[in-house]
Amino acid sequence: MHRSLNLTSIPVWKNLKKHAENFSRPDRHLKYLIKENSRLEKFSLKCNGFFYDFSRQRVDEKVMSLLFELAKARKLKEQFISMMNGEKINTSENRAALHTASRNFSGNSIFLDKKDVMPEIIKTRENIREFASKVHNGKITGSTGRHFNHVVVIGIGGSYLGTKFVSCALEAFADKDIEIHFLSNVDIHNFGNIVSRIEAGSTLWIVVSKSYTTAETIANTNLAISFMKEKGLDPSKHLITVTSKGSPGDDPKNPVLSSFHMFDFIGGRYSVSSAVGGVPLSLYLGYDKFEQFLKGTEEMDIHSKDSPCEKNIPLIAALISIWNNNFLGYQTQAIIPYASPLQKLAPHIQQLSMESNGKSVTQEGHSLDEPAGAIIFGEPGTNAQHSFFQLAHQGRPFPIEFIGVIKPQYNYKSKRVTNHQELWANLISQPTALALGKEDKNKAKYFPGNRPSSTILINNLSPESIGRLLSFYEAKTVFEAFIWGTNPFDQFGVELGKAIASGIRNEIELKNEQKDHSFEKMDKITKFYLDALFSGKL
Amino acid sequence: MHRSLNLTSIPVWKNLKKHAENFSRPDRHLKYLIKENSRLEKFSLKCNGFFYDFSRQRVDEKVMSLLFELAKARKLKEQFISMMNGEKINTSENRAALHTASRNFSGNSIFLDKKDVMPEIIKTRENIREFASKVHNGKITGSTGRHFNHVVVIGIGGSYLGTKFVSCALEAFADKDIEIHFLSNVDIHNFGNIVSRIEAGSTLWIVVSKSYTTAETIANTNLAISFMKEKGLDPSKHLITVTSKGSPGDDPKNPVLSSFHMFDFIGGRYSVSSAVGGVPLSLYLGYDKFEQFLKGTEEMDIHSKDSPCEKNIPLIAALISIWNNNFLGYQTQAIIPYASPLQKLAPHIQQLSMESNGKSVTQEGHSLDEPAGAIIFGEPGTNAQHSFFQLAHQGRPFPIEFIGVIKPQYNYKSKRVTNHQELWANLISQPTALALGKEDKNKAKYFPGNRPSSTILINNLSPESIGRLLSFYEAKTVFEAFIWGTNPFDQFGVELGKAIASGIRNEIELKNEQKDHSFEKMDKITKFYLDALFSGKL
Repeated sequence: MHRSLNLTSIPVWKNLKKHAENFSRPDRHLKYLIKENSRLEKFSLKCNGFFYDFSRQRVDEKVMSLLFELAKARKLKEQFISMMNGEKINTSENRAALHTASRNFSGNSIFLDKKDVMPEIIKTRENIREFASKVHNGKITGSTGRHFNHVVVIGIGGSYLGTKFVSCALEAFADKDIEIHFLSNVDIHNFGNIVSRIEAGSTLWIVVSKSYTTAETIANTNLAISFMKEKGLDPSKHLITVTSKGSPGDDPKNPVLSSFHMFDFIGGRYSVSSAVGGVPLSLYLGYDKFEQFLKGTEEMDIHSKDSPCEKNIPLIAALISIWNNNFLGYQTQAIIPYASPLQKLAPHIQQLSMESNGKSVTQEGHSLDEPAGAIIFGEPGTNAQHSFFQLAHQGRPFPIEFIGVIKPQYNYKSKRVTNHQELWANLISQPTALALGKEDKNKAKYFPGNRPSSTILINNLSPESIGRLLSFYEAKTVFEAFIWGTNPFDQFGVELGKAIASGIRNEIELKNEQKDHSFEKMDKITKFYLDALFSGKL
Repeated sequence: MHRSLNLTSIPVWKNLKKHAENFSRPDRHLKYLIKENSRLEKFSLKCNGFFYDFSRQRVDEKVMSLLFELAKARKLKEQFISMMNGEKINTSENRAALHTASRNFSGNSIFLDKKDVMPEIIKTRENIREFASKVHNGKITGSTGRHFNHVVVIGIGGSYLGTKFVSCALEAFADKDIEIHFLSNVDIHNFGNIVSRIEAGSTLWIVVSKSYTTAETIANTNLAISFMKEKGLDPSKHLITVTSKGSPGDDPKNPVLSSFHMFDFIGGRYSVSSAVGGVPLSLYLGYDKFEQFLKGTEEMDIHSKDSPCEKNIPLIAALISIWNNNFLGYQTQAIIPYASPLQKLAPHIQQLSMESNGKSVTQEGHSLDEPAGAIIFGEPGTNAQHSFFQLAHQGRPFPIEFIGVIKPQYNYKSKRVTNHQELWANLISQPTALALGKEDKNKAKYFPGNRPSSTILINNLSPESIGRLLSFYEAKTVFEAFIWGTNPFDQFGVELGKAIASGIRNEIELKNEQKDHSFEKMDKITKFYLDALFSGKL
């Protein structure tokens, strides 16, 4: 697909730059913008129980119309359709990006290299359903015949964060008498913490790694196997893998209870709806709940693919990101859900967005002429209000995405308002306060306002709603990349650290073997740290 | 104390701006700087088992010498001493900032309004020691005579994050058969989650609120009291308070098992070493461990007060922050501890730093002419590497503070290297990779490098070490404010949202009382959200 090499040479990009200058004028302050007639009607959208309000963003009708022009110039819709159709849009790795296929229930085929990928995806889903059901009804048990009551997911990054987010969000639906634990970091403390909370005989370990060579995951798997052996258990009856066909985790020489496949056309950070999320979430919640979650993601996929730009929620959210990033100059974006079950959303989107869009090179291999990617962070509200909202209101401004849930999972009344209403009083007031600001002669009590935010509402915390929310962020992320012209599916930026770590690991091994090994080959700073590690003190 | 109104008019500030321009030159790339002779020796410091390495920051000897000049021009040491001596440096609230007094074991008096504050502080410590000991030996029990095995801390923001950080960091020392839980958010889900994990009869609730009017904390306390009554317990035998003398939480009309005092000269986010942290941490770990932690904080306080600028670790760290913020233009700062027990450090420092320094006004009430405050975020390594380090290496650069622990709490050997060594291979490699970068003809695999970081090492995860780390960040934060000339102890920026929320809460109450109440007085956007809340769907 032909795309211009330089963002700054696109005519509408130039127009946006020019128009953005107007937004430093006092009369473009949000306190005026939000009072315009029909502000909310013009700058909000609703679809399938998902509401997106960008009325408190620093935009006007002209901005939006230029941004839609940009969307067309960058062929966003066409690119999204190509992605869903299995084109190899991950050009640097010559791969498709078919996470949407993992939740395709349309019955339609999706061809990749002339082969329909759907039969294998459907078969994997069926395998998951069957396996989970057998665990739940006790047909599959551990080596001592006991029901599985604990599931430990061994995985890191994309094999961890998405599943963690969804399992937290849907905790209220976990009625299978199974607790879920996550072993991600190689730090031995994590392992110690988990084994203190499980019972070996009733624990099922799920190793999630596409290549089955991820250093942290393999180190933790080795620990888990030793632990099982110490407890007199047969690891092959307590371990399942989610991995690529033919990887060391899918090798009959290393027998496991069951193995589920990952495909190279679904990247880690987009893999929650594949077996990566499917296996642990189906064990934890039941396959039916996982499928409801998938149906929610599919609904939002269809919305993203079929809605025209002007009605397309993730696409508009992506345009707003670009506006904030490249035209208003914000480098950071906070995500603040007013719902504790969504507490792991920000860490997941942190990975999804920053690993996808923290790039400086176009799909075609040219240097980007504008910065891409925002730094994402967030905590649930109201906690965030009592933590860093001082800076949000009176320090360096950054855009915020607020998220509210209309129906709570529980309803307690505490004095005159319910806790949920208390939460909403805050959810409603913060975007207003950030936008309006407040004059005060005492400069310490002056609020400049003009701080942009969006508000997302979802009806409830059902599996479908969580699915829509996840798919919204996935689509928003790839739309952003399509605008910048970057590849949101590779991650070469993690390679250099790994390569250097490998050389250091070799030195450590040498020293473990030969006590008199000195680190003379290393640069002085590295040598200092290696000496500190081995001396055991400063 | 006289300080210039404008940062930009300070001569050394101008010199720093000028010198900073040189750092865009290719020959100032970190890959050259770190190879200079004695780089590590010149740009690192060690004190009391705390090592601070800024050799991978984008600084040279001239930068440091100008920064030390700035430190002197801004009288950083004098201000720190004034703070520790009880001067009312929180001018906007006419208060002292005496968190350091809460860990003063020197025997010296500290006078505030001509009254020595130490006797009251020492008495509070003694009360905590006595109370914790009686709980541990069963002399104090709940209303059914059962030992307390669960402690729930009800508090938010500064009454939560610091204690949470320290309790996580020191979890390995918790040998009192007491589990600790934190109830912060008003979101009812948190309450439900905690009551599912405790036993009412053996649970002690600690309400932490200086004013005893914090909306979230009071709503949660009311829930806790109802819960205890439902379970047939006497709340006054299961509830203690940490609050100001004379607050509604320290009122004989509302009897509680015990009440501990907070002082208006210690702000929430600096209060871990006061009764705020002292009561829960002493119950969880034993008072002795808490005192060891205090001794660590005191050590670093003394270092910060007594060391000359050129040898003062928190002061230098603050200078580096200012250099990165105001001269090199970085707006964000990540904190990446390679130790899972430190996983709650970043959320705590996020509050400590962003609430202290997210300001735009000087102590004297003038608008700042330079931006202050950085956005702080972070996750433990190596998790962070598998999440957002793509952006760190190839996207918009941001400075990182790495933290390593020399001695692990546990030692497992996994194949040829231990898990702890694996962690260190990564801790060592990341700052190097970020600094050096790597040439590659394929731009997708090109690493620009020149990305600054510091590395902190601590000997172990002992209470003393954690105390030093906490005090390091507290001192660094106030030194930053002293440079900007801002007040790190007030937080007026949280008031506007609260005021608007209060109006919305009133409307919700009216609607709860009268079903036909419409929200006509509200602006249209607010009305839309209130209608959505009451209609229960989109």
